[in-house]
Amino acid sequence: MVAMKTLTEKILTDTIRLRPANSHKGTFGRVCLVGGNYQFGGAIIMATEASVYSGAGLNTTLTDVVNFGPLHARLPEAMVTEFTNQKALTQLVSAADTVVVGPGLGVESDSLTVLKGVFDAIRPSQTLLIDGSAITMIAENDLPLPTAHLIFTPHQMEWQRLSGIPINNQENEANEKVREELDAIVVLKSHRTRIYTSEGSFMNPTGTPAQATGGMGDTLAGMIGGFTAQFTHRENAVLAAVYAHSDIADNLADHQYVVLPTQIMHQLPTYMHDHQSKR
Amino acid sequence: MVAMKTLTEKILTDTIRLRPANSHKGTFGRVCLVGGNYQFGGAIIMATEASVYSGAGLNTTLTDVVNFGPLHARLPEAMVTEFTNQKALTQLVSAADTVVVGPGLGVESDSLTVLKGVFDAIRPSQTLLIDGSAITMIAENDLPLPTAHLIFTPHQMEWQRLSGIPINNQENEANEKVREELDAIVVLKSHRTRIYTSEGSFMNPTGTPAQATGGMGDTLAGMIGGFTAQFTHRENAVLAAVYAHSDIADNLADHQYVVLPTQIMHQLPTYMHDHQSKR
Amino acid sequence: MVAMKTLTEKILTDTIRLRPANSHKGTFGRVCLVGGNYQFGGAIIMATEASVYSGAGLNTTLTDVVNFGPLHARLPEAMVTEFTNQKALTQLVSAADTVVVGPGLGVESDSLTVLKGVFDAIRPSQTLLIDGSAITMIAENDLPLPTAHLIFTPHQMEWQRLSGIPINNQENEANEKVREELDAIVVLKSHRTRIYTSEGSFMNPTGTPAQATGGMGDTLAGMIGGFTAQFTHRENAVLAAVYAHSDIADNLADHQYVVLPTQIMHQLPTYMHDHQSKR
Amino acid sequence: MVAMKTLTEKILTDTIRLRPANSHKGTFGRVCLVGGNYQFGGAIIMATEASVYSGAGLNTTLTDVVNFGPLHARLPEAMVTEFTNQKALTQLVSAADTVVVGPGLGVESDSLTVLKGVFDAIRPSQTLLIDGSAITMIAENDLPLPTAHLIFTPHQMEWQRLSGIPINNQENEANEKVREELDAIVVLKSHRTRIYTSEGSFMNPTGTPAQATGGMGDTLAGMIGGFTAQFTHRENAVLAAVYAHSDIADNLADHQYVVLPTQIMHQLPTYMHDHQSKR
Repeated sequence: MVAMKTLTEKILTDTIRLRPANSHKGTFGRVCLVGGNYQFGGAIIMATEASVYSGAGLNTTLTDVVNFGPLHARLPEAMVTEFTNQKALTQLVSAADTVVVGPGLGVESDSLTVLKGVFDAIRPSQTLLIDGSAITMIAENDLPLPTAHLIFTPHQMEWQRLSGIPINNQENEANEKVREELDAIVVLKSHRTRIYTSEGSFMNPTGTPAQATGGMGDTLAGMIGGFTAQFTHRENAVLAAVYAHSDIADNLADHQYVVLPTQIMHQLPTYMHDHQSKR
Repeated sequence: MVAMKTLTEKILTDTIRLRPANSHKGTFGRVCLVGGNYQFGGAIIMATEASVYSGAGLNTTLTDVVNFGPLHARLPEAMVTEFTNQKALTQLVSAADTVVVGPGLGVESDSLTVLKGVFDAIRPSQTLLIDGSAITMIAENDLPLPTAHLIFTPHQMEWQRLSGIPINNQENEANEKVREELDAIVVLKSHRTRIYTSEGSFMNPTGTPAQATGGMGDTLAGMIGGFTAQFTHRENAVLAAVYAHSDIADNLADHQYVVLPTQIMHQLPTYMHDHQSKR
Repeated sequence: MVAMKTLTEKILTDTIRLRPANSHKGTFGRVCLVGGNYQFGGAIIMATEASVYSGAGLNTTLTDVVNFGPLHARLPEAMVTEFTNQKALTQLVSAADTVVVGPGLGVESDSLTVLKGVFDAIRPSQTLLIDGSAITMIAENDLPLPTAHLIFTPHQMEWQRLSGIPINNQENEANEKVREELDAIVVLKSHRTRIYTSEGSFMNPTGTPAQATGGMGDTLAGMIGGFTAQFTHRENAVLAAVYAHSDIADNLADHQYVVLPTQIMHQLPTYMHDHQSKR
Repeated sequence: MVAMKTLTEKILTDTIRLRPANSHKGTFGRVCLVGGNYQFGGAIIMATEASVYSGAGLNTTLTDVVNFGPLHARLPEAMVTEFTNQKALTQLVSAADTVVVGPGLGVESDSLTVLKGVFDAIRPSQTLLIDGSAITMIAENDLPLPTAHLIFTPHQMEWQRLSGIPINNQENEANEKVREELDAIVVLKSHRTRIYTSEGSFMNPTGTPAQATGGMGDTLAGMIGGFTAQFTHRENAVLAAVYAHSDIADNLADHQYVVLPTQIMHQLPTYMHDHQSKR
């Protein structure tokens, strides 16, 4: 076990490239977001909104039809399809650079079918972010993981379910061991989020209690989706998204008692402008 | 009868705690909001929005399905379930710190079924805020009250129905007597709202005629929901919410002929930041 | 025929009263807005939004169910009911101070049924504003007018249909004669709107070509609805609404090539604050 | 082949006329926008929003019913009808000055029926903008083009499908030859968009990689719709819309890493004010 590194603002300029002049929307990646059942539609709406505002070129959301209207009312920039449409799911997942599965997906039998559909369609070259109830379903159903560039974004209880490590024992050495077995990037969310990668382990120094409200994780999942679709160094993309997410919250918390998830994503275009690479 | 105290800004700093660094969304409470029939969906949307913007950690709304879309279009941060789903209602009410029932609930037979479902599910340790048509249904159907930390938020006509005291006779002594019988906190709304608690009776000095528009009460109910879920001293949480609600309106009325409910709630994050405890 | 008077800013301070301290939402009137079929839902949404932002105390919209969601997504402050629910329509129209019928109502047989339902329910003491396709249906079906304080808000073609006066002959004398027969206030909309009342005829000097876009009339109808519900001098309320509507547009046009209807209504709270009576 | 001209800001003042004082919404044209299937509703919402914000007098959207709610939640200024309602489609297309077909229309058999319906209804004096999947369907089905003032807005792959010219060979001479055969204005979108007209060929110098995100093309289509409906010189209207669309993006990109389509359209009223003809 090597020492955990603490992230600094440098991860942003290392990651957020100056956009090439000769580019088109395909240059900035295609994200497919899967989640949002009847009850938890807000989660996939927030994840999608975060991906769009982070600059991903094309975003498609697979969700319950009840969520089409509110998603488009907020964000006509995203495309939508029903997540129970297995054929469309297979096609859209296959065409993506990054797939985000889990925000508001639920743990019903339909949710499990959707998750399995994603696992069947994903290919080894793609990035697959697994969040929220998708993590829980993997743990509870002992689902075999697909071959892909996996990213897990559990909170501490979800990590306990997935890794088997009780919350009180979630020390770096134990976490790193499970991460290696998973062959994944693990973003272990707490008031000081830790990120475990094959290139080392990192502590995120940003973050505020003003951020402790429902939807923060969905927003982070969408941001990581957008960052990994655009920026080629996958580990850095994850680290930069985690840092930016909480750093923006810190800035807003200078003037706000609570910071809403949707407020964070709306800051992304200016924040990323101010923290991009100069070259 | 002791003299009625007039609230001051001090109730804010006494109540709105500095958020602890090591916290998560669970730290700031879980609010369950029940209401919004086919006609009055806006009421439960406003109550929910007020609870979210006041900083409650997790918010779930039980309402008519017609309201899912507009709620999520405004506020993806909240979760939703149909209020006619008895099983889900029981589970969600049981899991909450504060339950708010009544905004836009209506007085149909379905509304009564929902209200009874809430009463059956609530436990003695929970806070239950009863607003609007829920108060009317209790009075009209002589419903037995459940054992819980009760808060009533009637306007003067609803208080007449519940207490039996005619509007013109709603003096402190009579009101306090009924409050004691109810074993509740009573927020009697008027242009100078009075709050009756077991710790004394209070006059709210803030408020403006610019505030006299539909939805103000729903907004206050949601704010009290969010405050009681976060702040442990229940009476103070109620008093602080009442004071803040009208004080924000006063500030907006410096420049506006009418103040819309949704404008008030959007001020909450900065207002609460500026009036929180320094320690 | 007496000379036509030109409105000045004085109509605003003459009309927009300082709100009394001891007031509640009932003090500021109840508006019922009827319109918005399957195709033209935006019209009734804009009328409702204008009424709410002008400060009417309580606002209920009777419309096609397809419009409930978008109305609440924009404006949870309003209540809604289906306009084909005859019983609810009768009850809500009866309870209103001002009824606005017509914005987006259409001219189908259902539209006509709704219009007749409004005419059956209205009482002599109420104010009834008749706009858009409701005017056309009256003309085409030779509908007898109900006894109420009538306000018509035709554009020039609608006025031709209702009055029988061809657009090119719509001079004051002819217009005044028909107005007298109708026993109504007539707001004849054009780039220089004229208002005919039993107290005289008025020319509105405000207005800009930036305003020439769909939805302006719906917005004015909603504003007149809100003003007449709040302010007791009916003629002045109409005049003040017409003046304010175009004066706000003029202000916005200082910086905008086109002024959207929804931008006008959102200026109402500050505009009315700045132009209210000092006493 | 004459040399390609580079657009300058002058195209704006040459095109955006000072609005005449005596005007009404009919003066500024009627736009009919057709598209937005079940999956791609956001595209037609953005096209419509762009047309409204560019100042077109009346805007009607023909789309899947699922898109009515979110369109009205964002933009009550537009009217809506189902695009499968053949009778309504024929009537609304016939009444328009400019018809925009394609944004989010899809390529299903229903989409093709809608496109053919538009082609059947259009008349020679009208402007018809053909965008996105409508271009693809023409190419794939070898559809005969209707007689009208045609505008095509392909990206490079769509132009390959329509013209038969491979992306790498899309040089001016070849493009101009096909344009002449089509008897149309062709807007060939790339990071430096080129516009081919019977009056010459033009290079647009504005544009930023911050713009490379889904929905940009839909927004441009809506803007061209709004501009051609208002401004009589058709070629200039197209050129001005292309220039303005990317120039606004450039301005926003001074402070943003990514520019969202909906942000561009919301700048139109002030941008057009600042760049209109002085006379």
